[in-house]
Amino acid sequence: MEVVIAQSERLKAQKLAPTKKRQIGLGEPHAILVSGAAGFVGSKLARLFVDRGYPVFGFDDLSRGSRQNLSGLLTHERFIFEKVDLSDAGAVRSRFMDCHSRIPISEVWHMAANSDIAAGIADASVDLRDTFLSTFNVLNAMKEAGVPFLAFASSSAVYGDLGEAPIREDVGPLLPVSNYGAMKLASEALISAAVENWLARALLFRFPNVIGVPATHGVILDFVRKLRITPNKLNVLGSGRQQKAYLHVNDLIDAIVYLRANASERLGYYNIGPGDNGVTVSFIAETTVGAVAPGAGIEYGVEDRGWTGDVPRFSYDIAKISALGWRPQLGSADAVRKAVGEIVRQEGHL
Amino acid sequence: MEVVIAQSERLKAQKLAPTKKRQIGLGEPHAILVSGAAGFVGSKLARLFVDRGYPVFGFDDLSRGSRQNLSGLLTHERFIFEKVDLSDAGAVRSRFMDCHSRIPISEVWHMAANSDIAAGIADASVDLRDTFLSTFNVLNAMKEAGVPFLAFASSSAVYGDLGEAPIREDVGPLLPVSNYGAMKLASEALISAAVENWLARALLFRFPNVIGVPATHGVILDFVRKLRITPNKLNVLGSGRQQKAYLHVNDLIDAIVYLRANASERLGYYNIGPGDNGVTVSFIAETTVGAVAPGAGIEYGVEDRGWTGDVPRFSYDIAKISALGWRPQLGSADAVRKAVGEIVRQEGHL
Repeated sequence: MEVVIAQSERLKAQKLAPTKKRQIGLGEPHAILVSGAAGFVGSKLARLFVDRGYPVFGFDDLSRGSRQNLSGLLTHERFIFEKVDLSDAGAVRSRFMDCHSRIPISEVWHMAANSDIAAGIADASVDLRDTFLSTFNVLNAMKEAGVPFLAFASSSAVYGDLGEAPIREDVGPLLPVSNYGAMKLASEALISAAVENWLARALLFRFPNVIGVPATHGVILDFVRKLRITPNKLNVLGSGRQQKAYLHVNDLIDAIVYLRANASERLGYYNIGPGDNGVTVSFIAETTVGAVAPGAGIEYGVEDRGWTGDVPRFSYDIAKISALGWRPQLGSADAVRKAVGEIVRQEGHL
Repeated sequence: MEVVIAQSERLKAQKLAPTKKRQIGLGEPHAILVSGAAGFVGSKLARLFVDRGYPVFGFDDLSRGSRQNLSGLLTHERFIFEKVDLSDAGAVRSRFMDCHSRIPISEVWHMAANSDIAAGIADASVDLRDTFLSTFNVLNAMKEAGVPFLAFASSSAVYGDLGEAPIREDVGPLLPVSNYGAMKLASEALISAAVENWLARALLFRFPNVIGVPATHGVILDFVRKLRITPNKLNVLGSGRQQKAYLHVNDLIDAIVYLRANASERLGYYNIGPGDNGVTVSFIAETTVGAVAPGAGIEYGVEDRGWTGDVPRFSYDIAKISALGWRPQLGSADAVRKAVGEIVRQEGHL
């Protein structure tokens, strides 16, 4: 334990002396930078890379993520956290170059983004800043530092509303229906141009709806919280017939590190999902009611869409990642059942 | 003539009293705002709308466009020019709302963008600002003012390098190879989300290579200027085998006003081009040499691409606009011949 603390102190001392370049010896791993490191996906990814022996720099503005998600990491010898507004070009550049001068960064995992789609529709500047300019600034810093590899959390939202036809990675047109989807597509486009022009390699992960804990938003958390307030009744936005694929976060993490090891393209872009056609909102409502408040009535709205910018149903094709040999552990229904249990515990219901 | 001046003075007086709202009488046309109004396409479009009887607000930062392109418009009774940096959110908002309070704007034709693709690759912030944030700011101002219609100058660059397969509007994936293409795709995505959420209607024009005068950049102008310096020799970047479709600017203007009248979708997106597979760079070199310096030698490079971010050849499908009844006057070869003549005259060679 003393050794761990000593190494941690050494890293922190280096943090205070950013001008002193650290020389990397042969065989010493380079660092991985995870943006959005205090968030739902980023925190799990940072943990995984630390556990695999990498020094990890975690960037987050702590607006949606939290230090709580980093418990066990903040004091770890190989983890250095930087609170930084990723939409601030100057701040990103300075923190990035400082970290890079301490331990050369060989990979950036850019997970930071706005996660509140409705907020981004009400005010386009939210996704401009947090979903797009964050990518722009991280890319610029990577270019300056000469970092060769970027992994990016894109989204099924880049596809917009393509109806019920199976969505493969090469479909068109790409006409997003939310500013979130638009700024994820904008980020993909920028990364694509970077790969053409200077970036050695990039992976774009088109995330589906991802569920699990720590939950900060999403339909299950909404339902659990509504039922805490009115335990005998659950009001559902929309008709309940909206159908979506849900992937458990454990499967998501498994998929992206699998792609890191197995995808070989210079610019790889992959749908990630459970491989089924998903479950309806009414299934999620019933599962949540069953876990939290058996017997509560469920009332539905009339619209097929819960809110503007929502896509009522789609079929998410994962043949491309499947061809590399990856399989999810849980389908949509099991992922929802597992996440409902986890979120109920998180919220202290049981 | 006195009447014209009087009306012009009246508009200018209103410009000085922006708080006084102008009431629009029945039958009085609303105004059209053209961004990039001092540019190659925008100046022609502004002229056309003025000639059709619309009051036109022309926005331009005069960085690539010029007042010279507005000769005959600047003194016109129905044209008001505003020098404004479209990447400056506050400036766009204030000038836009001021114009809108004088004459309600019913259409925005957003033609402003960076036009120097290579500059945008060297420094990503060029296209961030001029190709993307300009769109973001114009959209935000439209939302605030409640303007229902946007026409947008997109680009074939959104398609990236899809090889030699015919490029229809619904192909995928969309992986641009330049920051220009990336920021045009980002703009399209943002407009798509706007149409889903608040904008009544939008048209996205995916421009091909457009040629004609006033030329400020492009391969023909490059060749003419090179031959002025070394009249006996033309050095061509790349192998000369790059093949592209070229549309004359007169056909382009014709196509976009045709779509305004004939496309009926809430979100229309159209390739615009000559409908052929284009001509090679060597054809352009030979045509230019023939017009400027007959007998001069032409020397080619070895690369298939003239510069990074260039797409060596593609086949641009215009079946969608053709189905509405539009046809270009000139194919690629005739467009090049005509533009060579025009640019030679512009440059004072003959």
